[in-house]
Amino acid sequence: MNITLKNNLPIGIFDSGVGGLTVYRSLHKRLPDERFLYLGDTARVPYGTKSLSTVERYGIENARFLAAHGIKMLVVACNTASALALPAIERAAGVPTVGVIESGARAAVEQAKTKIGVIATEATVRSGAYRRAIERRAPHVNIIEQACPLFVSLAEEGYAETEAARIIANDYLKELRAALVDALVIGCTHYPVLRKVIEETIGEGVMLIDSGEAVAEDTAAALETHGLGRAPDRENLARPRRLCDDLDHFYVTDSAERFSRIAEMFLGSAPRRLEAVEVWGHDQLNAGRKEN
Amino acid sequence: MNITLKNNLPIGIFDSGVGGLTVYRSLHKRLPDERFLYLGDTARVPYGTKSLSTVERYGIENARFLAAHGIKMLVVACNTASALALPAIERAAGVPTVGVIESGARAAVEQAKTKIGVIATEATVRSGAYRRAIERRAPHVNIIEQACPLFVSLAEEGYAETEAARIIANDYLKELRAALVDALVIGCTHYPVLRKVIEETIGEGVMLIDSGEAVAEDTAAALETHGLGRAPDRENLARPRRLCDDLDHFYVTDSAERFSRIAEMFLGSAPRRLEAVEVWGHDQLNAGRKEN
Repeated sequence: MNITLKNNLPIGIFDSGVGGLTVYRSLHKRLPDERFLYLGDTARVPYGTKSLSTVERYGIENARFLAAHGIKMLVVACNTASALALPAIERAAGVPTVGVIESGARAAVEQAKTKIGVIATEATVRSGAYRRAIERRAPHVNIIEQACPLFVSLAEEGYAETEAARIIANDYLKELRAALVDALVIGCTHYPVLRKVIEETIGEGVMLIDSGEAVAEDTAAALETHGLGRAPDRENLARPRRLCDDLDHFYVTDSAERFSRIAEMFLGSAPRRLEAVEVWGHDQLNAGRKEN
Repeated sequence: MNITLKNNLPIGIFDSGVGGLTVYRSLHKRLPDERFLYLGDTARVPYGTKSLSTVERYGIENARFLAAHGIKMLVVACNTASALALPAIERAAGVPTVGVIESGARAAVEQAKTKIGVIATEATVRSGAYRRAIERRAPHVNIIEQACPLFVSLAEEGYAETEAARIIANDYLKELRAALVDALVIGCTHYPVLRKVIEETIGEGVMLIDSGEAVAEDTAAALETHGLGRAPDRENLARPRRLCDDLDHFYVTDSAERFSRIAEMFLGSAPRRLEAVEVWGHDQLNAGRKEN
């Protein structure tokens, strides 16, 4: 493919559902000239309570769907899929692929000296992926992991800044607070929605690492390395792009209406181009539109 | 098939995940001579936030899987699937089928005179299925419905009897309490796990209707009507069967370990016969064992 044409392709992002919108927000901010193709696998969400083989199968199907639509790079916004299946997903995508786990681990090691806390889904914690990614970079750092499963529904149901969320956060984070961690990795894309409560609960002086922001940095670096960056549009210079505008395309595997409503809560605006699709065909040709 | 052989077949039960175990418990108690085949679609849980066409497809696949294993009757324990897709599920099963919605509505109308509250998932409430089922039986009764989406994860994560659950219940149930309902239908199989908190919050004098208990009554009646009951085993007379014993078989589409753990929390004991399977083949022959 002609280099300029390839550079003009969008960056693919997928997540198990709406959580990855916090990663989309970080990417959009860091890379205002790029366009994005987002896939939320809302028919099969959540991944965080499911097994390795199931998450791998879902991840491969998502990657193939996005690849069939033409992308130059893939960001796996879902921590669980990054933890369990990144190599298989990269092979299926056939383009440079980055995942939130490696980026979050890199950012954590840059900030913390002795003790790093990680909060994530049950599956991500059980996989030990953050632990391995951090230990590879800083073998002597002390790592404490904690699953916070209720945070996902609290975020999706609009309970982020409530007394109930504070009580639950207090319960989940008490060991991490007692351990006096230097940095806390927010290792699930839903959790940044509860950032304020997490910050208040873990206490002052703990650096919060948002894996979404970290992966946006690494995406920018990868575009540079592969020479895949997109040249600025002239009109963009005058009028910066908005989140969820016409240039970014969103696909969901179910419940577009619910996705749209939660997107508005997470991002302040709902996607203008949003489509319900099926991704579970046996090959790329089956990845078509959904009849509902 | 020989009548006695057919009568000896188990009763199939399916739910989107672990919630239907509360229905299994009611069936087991009401019908101690019967055997059960339970399918929890844990790879695709939850259904309550998904669309009609997706829930219908999942329900049909589950019914075919159970039918292929030999059942004499099917209980759709999942409120969402009962609300959205019962006729299609019954056709796919090819055996007499009952769903929790009709049973819950019947029991509610028997208890309440003027105002009935219904708590259920977002999809069940949106479907209006309880409203229609109640109005068909009692056209002049006043019906108030309320979705309580956070109850599902509070139940699954062991937060049923916590301060956080009480705060959230208070929030969800305040309109129903103010409306002075006579009866409250617990229209999601997860919610009975929070029964104590729901009871305290809604206040005295409100009759709680557990759709699981109601569907167990209707299952008993249907077995009678169709002449499908099982004769008591001699040994049962001496030693009553236990929940989750060797005679009941459980299938899940993912994460058997997690299912087992939650079953122990919900029922006091974990299934002795539990198997991970796939149900999403294109026909019954593809419904086979899972490689994990």
